[in-house]
Amino acid sequence: MVATKIPPNTLNTIPRSGWRGLIEEYRAYLPVTDTTPVVTLREGNTPLIPVPYISNLIGRNVKVFVKYDGLNPTGSFKDRGMTMAITKAKEAGAKAVICASTGNTSAAAAAYATRAGLRAFVIVPDGYVALGKLAQALIYGAEVLAIDGNFDDALTIVREIADNYPVTLVNSLNPYRLEGQKTAAFEVVDTLGYAPDWVCIPVGNAGNITAYWMGFCQYQGEGRCDSLPRMMGFQAAGSAPLIHGHQIMKPDTIATAIRIGNPANWDKALSVREASNGEFNAVTDAEILEAYKILGREEGIFCEPASAASVAGVLKLKDQVPDNGTVVCVLTGNGLKDPDSAMSNSEGGIKGGIKADLQEVAKVMGFEP
Amino acid sequence: MVATKIPPNTLNTIPRSGWRGLIEEYRAYLPVTDTTPVVTLREGNTPLIPVPYISNLIGRNVKVFVKYDGLNPTGSFKDRGMTMAITKAKEAGAKAVICASTGNTSAAAAAYATRAGLRAFVIVPDGYVALGKLAQALIYGAEVLAIDGNFDDALTIVREIADNYPVTLVNSLNPYRLEGQKTAAFEVVDTLGYAPDWVCIPVGNAGNITAYWMGFCQYQGEGRCDSLPRMMGFQAAGSAPLIHGHQIMKPDTIATAIRIGNPANWDKALSVREASNGEFNAVTDAEILEAYKILGREEGIFCEPASAASVAGVLKLKDQVPDNGTVVCVLTGNGLKDPDSAMSNSEGGIKGGIKADLQEVAKVMGFEP
Repeated sequence: MVATKIPPNTLNTIPRSGWRGLIEEYRAYLPVTDTTPVVTLREGNTPLIPVPYISNLIGRNVKVFVKYDGLNPTGSFKDRGMTMAITKAKEAGAKAVICASTGNTSAAAAAYATRAGLRAFVIVPDGYVALGKLAQALIYGAEVLAIDGNFDDALTIVREIADNYPVTLVNSLNPYRLEGQKTAAFEVVDTLGYAPDWVCIPVGNAGNITAYWMGFCQYQGEGRCDSLPRMMGFQAAGSAPLIHGHQIMKPDTIATAIRIGNPANWDKALSVREASNGEFNAVTDAEILEAYKILGREEGIFCEPASAASVAGVLKLKDQVPDNGTVVCVLTGNGLKDPDSAMSNSEGGIKGGIKADLQEVAKVMGFEP
Repeated sequence: MVATKIPPNTLNTIPRSGWRGLIEEYRAYLPVTDTTPVVTLREGNTPLIPVPYISNLIGRNVKVFVKYDGLNPTGSFKDRGMTMAITKAKEAGAKAVICASTGNTSAAAAAYATRAGLRAFVIVPDGYVALGKLAQALIYGAEVLAIDGNFDDALTIVREIADNYPVTLVNSLNPYRLEGQKTAAFEVVDTLGYAPDWVCIPVGNAGNITAYWMGFCQYQGEGRCDSLPRMMGFQAAGSAPLIHGHQIMKPDTIATAIRIGNPANWDKALSVREASNGEFNAVTDAEILEAYKILGREEGIFCEPASAASVAGVLKLKDQVPDNGTVVCVLTGNGLKDPDSAMSNSEGGIKGGIKADLQEVAKVMGFEP
């Protein structure tokens, strides 16, 4: 085994709690110059948390960690891409940004746009999207326009607007988003001191798996890690175009953040699988929900259902994990983003009608016969 | 001015993204030994974010930052106290922990208890608490018992249980919580390189203002900062016992996290005010909501309504802030904790009935006449 060449860490000259956001921290690896106007909410630097219960389910001294990207400023990994996309939009002189999104992308776009002094437009199909899904973007000052038409019409419109007006598209097609997202791989290596054996990751548009791979490869090229992980992608069974090899017309899963029938980064994802000797697999909604509950109940970690696909995946393939291996499961979003799923998975958890009496309560708790 | 004596920062010898949780990072300042079983979700290390729009509202070269503690693992500053409280409960051999809480405390207690392998009991008044408020604690595996009685009865029961069984009370009365919470002050100093002139903080039970002050004093004693801040506490006008000097029987405010009529740390809070030459003031619900909206719309930061009391406070007292001063406003909780407030403050933000046509959409956006 070749010795790991980690250069002197110049990032360590200021106090560790003074994280400046991922662009400043990883400036050398990103497409910015000294004059780029960095737009940041101090995103990144999310915890890599050991999950001992899940590790024990696998056994054989396997160590599993979750990269909890739900602790980014707007509650999802989208902030990593958006700090870059909005920074570059600002640098290019855009007056506004636009996306068609009903979820995490619209929230992140709106938050970073307002930091940059840009307007944020979110295009949605009229009558299709609940206010609750958009409330966060609206709090950040997004201007939401509901058009007559479906989601494809909304996607068409945002591209046309971006082509014809000083408005930057910050959908998945924006190339800077992957540049920002790749920093999650840097953080994993900086925290572990090495690259894991496996990275398990939920796959919708397949941007994040592509970005992680970019990050690991770049870090290896810079001598910051020896090895590269196998990239293990997991799609929801009802929304698994990469597994089936064809577009899914009506994708269906409770994991809404990965409910995508035609991934924007399809070709890139296949390249990542091949280059990393990875695998793509499907996990059912039942497996996703079981992983979601295990994370909460056994590990104290609350994520979006889609995030739990990564943990469902490693549990599904547990016999394939190498002995003594290190696995990182990516948790893409905060569980607080989806209160409905939390409610529907915690029913029956309250015992009522108990007399306000010490003995009575102690009995219910199991401390009295 | 005395030169700041900052000892060599021994924390900087591992990569900056490898934050190990606040107990490990600040071990020297906390009541733990080498054999204490540390229970952590890698809490702390939350961003200190500049808020330029709010700074400009004050002017005179005042620099305002927010300490965004909503990015802790369960979404509030309670995690800082709970990592300590549960660690010490585990060390003492407790089999379970208990609290009477309907909000952030119950979520944090449940998450850390499950990490520790302890049962977490949450006592609530029957018929009083909505499932939505408890869903997060339930996801973390809390056992919620609803008793016949009011909130005071619940408080009485939890104390009796803790006195009579191997169950640790993790309510505000638990002394280790303040020990953990004080680390937020350490992080502020480590990030700024000095102590701010003012710390503005929402005040409910007055634990956090007490803990911050403990932290600043301890850090000054260790030579890590020269000066101490003025501690500026803000209560909601309808729930302001410390301002009125007497208990409020029916506290009323939209800022539910500080809706407390009889603060547990009343005497300590008054001592902090005196020792720091601080001030306590009331802010109205209208002022709190205006600050909440400004944070979202202008700064891209989404917090709980109660958190915004700190920003409402500094805006109310803006003429008193010293020229060129540095102000830290504490944002105690994540806005995602309270989706109802987000919804009711974002109504009317969607423009509907727009034809799916480039010219039409561009016109609504203001790019066509």
